[in-house]
Amino acid sequence: MQNITIVGAGLAGSLLSVYLAKKGFNVNVYERRPDMRKTGISAGKSINLALSARGINALKEVGLYDEIKKISIPMYGRRIHTIDGSTNLQPYGRDLSEYINSVSRSELNKKLMDLVENFPSVKIHFNMRCINMDLAKDELYFYNEAQNTEHHISSPVTISADGAASAVRMEMMKTPRFDFKQEYENYGYKELHIPPNNDGTFKMDTNALHIWPRGSFMLIALPNMDGSFTCTLFLAYDKSFAGENSFEFLNDKSKVQQFFEKNFPDTISLMPALLEDFFANPTGTLITIKCFPWSIEGKMLMLGDASHAIVPFFGQGMNAAFEDCSVLNKCIDNHPAEWNKIFSEFQTLRKPNTDAIAELAQENFIEMRDLVAEPSYLLKKKIEAKLYSIYPDTFVPKYSMVTFLRMPYSTALKRGKIQEEILEELSKEKLSPENIDLKQADKLIKAKLPKLDL
Amino acid sequence: MQNITIVGAGLAGSLLSVYLAKKGFNVNVYERRPDMRKTGISAGKSINLALSARGINALKEVGLYDEIKKISIPMYGRRIHTIDGSTNLQPYGRDLSEYINSVSRSELNKKLMDLVENFPSVKIHFNMRCINMDLAKDELYFYNEAQNTEHHISSPVTISADGAASAVRMEMMKTPRFDFKQEYENYGYKELHIPPNNDGTFKMDTNALHIWPRGSFMLIALPNMDGSFTCTLFLAYDKSFAGENSFEFLNDKSKVQQFFEKNFPDTISLMPALLEDFFANPTGTLITIKCFPWSIEGKMLMLGDASHAIVPFFGQGMNAAFEDCSVLNKCIDNHPAEWNKIFSEFQTLRKPNTDAIAELAQENFIEMRDLVAEPSYLLKKKIEAKLYSIYPDTFVPKYSMVTFLRMPYSTALKRGKIQEEILEELSKEKLSPENIDLKQADKLIKAKLPKLDL
Repeated sequence: MQNITIVGAGLAGSLLSVYLAKKGFNVNVYERRPDMRKTGISAGKSINLALSARGINALKEVGLYDEIKKISIPMYGRRIHTIDGSTNLQPYGRDLSEYINSVSRSELNKKLMDLVENFPSVKIHFNMRCINMDLAKDELYFYNEAQNTEHHISSPVTISADGAASAVRMEMMKTPRFDFKQEYENYGYKELHIPPNNDGTFKMDTNALHIWPRGSFMLIALPNMDGSFTCTLFLAYDKSFAGENSFEFLNDKSKVQQFFEKNFPDTISLMPALLEDFFANPTGTLITIKCFPWSIEGKMLMLGDASHAIVPFFGQGMNAAFEDCSVLNKCIDNHPAEWNKIFSEFQTLRKPNTDAIAELAQENFIEMRDLVAEPSYLLKKKIEAKLYSIYPDTFVPKYSMVTFLRMPYSTALKRGKIQEEILEELSKEKLSPENIDLKQADKLIKAKLPKLDL
Repeated sequence: MQNITIVGAGLAGSLLSVYLAKKGFNVNVYERRPDMRKTGISAGKSINLALSARGINALKEVGLYDEIKKISIPMYGRRIHTIDGSTNLQPYGRDLSEYINSVSRSELNKKLMDLVENFPSVKIHFNMRCINMDLAKDELYFYNEAQNTEHHISSPVTISADGAASAVRMEMMKTPRFDFKQEYENYGYKELHIPPNNDGTFKMDTNALHIWPRGSFMLIALPNMDGSFTCTLFLAYDKSFAGENSFEFLNDKSKVQQFFEKNFPDTISLMPALLEDFFANPTGTLITIKCFPWSIEGKMLMLGDASHAIVPFFGQGMNAAFEDCSVLNKCIDNHPAEWNKIFSEFQTLRKPNTDAIAELAQENFIEMRDLVAEPSYLLKKKIEAKLYSIYPDTFVPKYSMVTFLRMPYSTALKRGKIQEEILEELSKEKLSPENIDLKQADKLIKAKLPKLDL
């Protein structure tokens, strides 16, 4: 059977190896890092993941979901923490059947590696850093940092799933007509930690994504299996951009203490190691990457963060990468062994959708850190819920289209914009949702939104 | 006196070394290629340059212009070649004092290198390819391909002028928060050649930039000192994008012959080696590069194409790079020896202007290949000339603002857009320029355009 090389044994690379093994390919996965199951994880720089419909569908397609479900915690809504310490829950879906799942990136990755190794036709090679590729000769070059050895691998078909800092993409940069864009946010993030109670129970509502929205910045918290929460502070880097609400300003413990007392007073008692964590953990960057083409003939394809890294605010980075694997699987079915056609169809299908989710994710940062606390936003959300109940096949909230359904992201983006216009129009008079003009709504919806085929 | 390292002895690097030598610095310039004055030039992939006010000003500031003028040919306007073989001249300026200058990239580069070597404090090191930089240690690493040797250079202050494929910028890509974009046009270019007559005279009007505008593609020709013209065909790459008018379609000699007979019949007799040149010369790509920041502390700065490569359609790539040198020279005056401040001021001043010329250059492709043959465009040009004569300090044509004046490119872009709106308004009724409503024009200009300080 044909050999396929995957660069990167992260989330996308691991899942893809299972898809390919199930199709009967021999798969060699080359991973830059040592085996994370043996070495312990470099903590302090991971945003917890929110597994939702697209990711779940892919895991189900290869029969892995039941195992992953065991390390996932349902989150039914956003728990908003106001500055006076009161909270309220904004449900994500219509009912308790619609939720997203908190899962630790490292636990998920380790579990996927375990599952991958059930397939004898997949082999993961650790400590192998991709240092070069010569596609004319079908050769990849790896450097083993542990053994200080160089390896030349013959690889007629290579799939790069090596993440936002992709080494393969750096080689693509040298090929002609390769469009590329990397764009950093003015914001960074800092991982913080809420430990469990002494009896192992959670210190806050377990089944929610907690948000402390503060306009130009925010804190979030997602539950872990051990009763703890992984918290992430999203804050501007520079004083010149954001004054005192910036990492640059918060350069000593007393300033950080004051900042949290002022902005997140209810978290002080929850985070005993706040000040230590703040200065021990690195400040992460937030990047959006777009490029094209994603492939070179039938020889090489990039997917996941390697070709379309996005900011984390819609919880879709991993879900989009898993959906990549599902779509690629279908392209392989459509053109068996014709890798040029497979890769070409894949990139044509996926590029508009990954561009769309990149835009949706950037927009959602503003929604999370600012709008969720605004009365006008809350009114629109209520009108949206009402219209969804009246037009369940047509007026589906943007969040649901992205998170609970699997329509193309580009469709969700387009319909989301139209729906926002309608909500804007209907909420103009600052009415309560009970008083909206349903005739006007019906007219607008029929004029602008075709029914979905759900 | 302080040492400064320049990476790249191209046009910008060579000129900059003279600026710095004149300030009293010791300058070491590291150039990847061998000395082009000794090895002969790799021909077949150069668009001739159009030296204009910004570039001339920089050359004058360091006293080099008189020498460069000797290898420049004035071009007073665009000579438009219609498909029936007739031509007409569209002047660039108001009179014969306003012109641009055709100059060969390689001749200019060689001449600049000769002039550089008059300064004993400048040394050019050839065959030195930058392979790495360690700015924490102030070290640069070069590989000498001729001698197969590696060189570690101590360099507290480095200026990268190593062009669109900058090796230094590839290192910058690995630093956090470096925004970067490279965008290719769907068009490529092919260099062709019109030799001189047997007696050494030119086969066409010497003092013009010749254009064969054909809507979706074009041919241009610029005069050389030896009586020849360097021609460039700008054409789409892909059949899927442009059908038969594409490099992909023109894959044999008979197709190329037919293409030229159909579209450029008057050039057939001028280009005896057309078919040989077409298949011997490479197809060049057209790229726009934007990035930020351009500097790392006071240690490293990128300028010229390395940080802001643009498409060639406004003839401003070299002029912008030379203007970079002039602006940097002023920043050094403003903050003697404070390189952090110098680099910071430089990038803050220049970034909006190089973004603006990138946009202007992309727009001008459409103007050159298509609009210059349109009656509506020609009418607007005539109205523009009339308004310029009435309002010489206010309504200056966009082309003149960019080419003959030295106002910030961003100002030229902004005023150009306003003027285009006014011309659109005034030309609505398809009147002749004699019949435009001068009262309306006066009202529009006074409302929208502040007077320039020329």
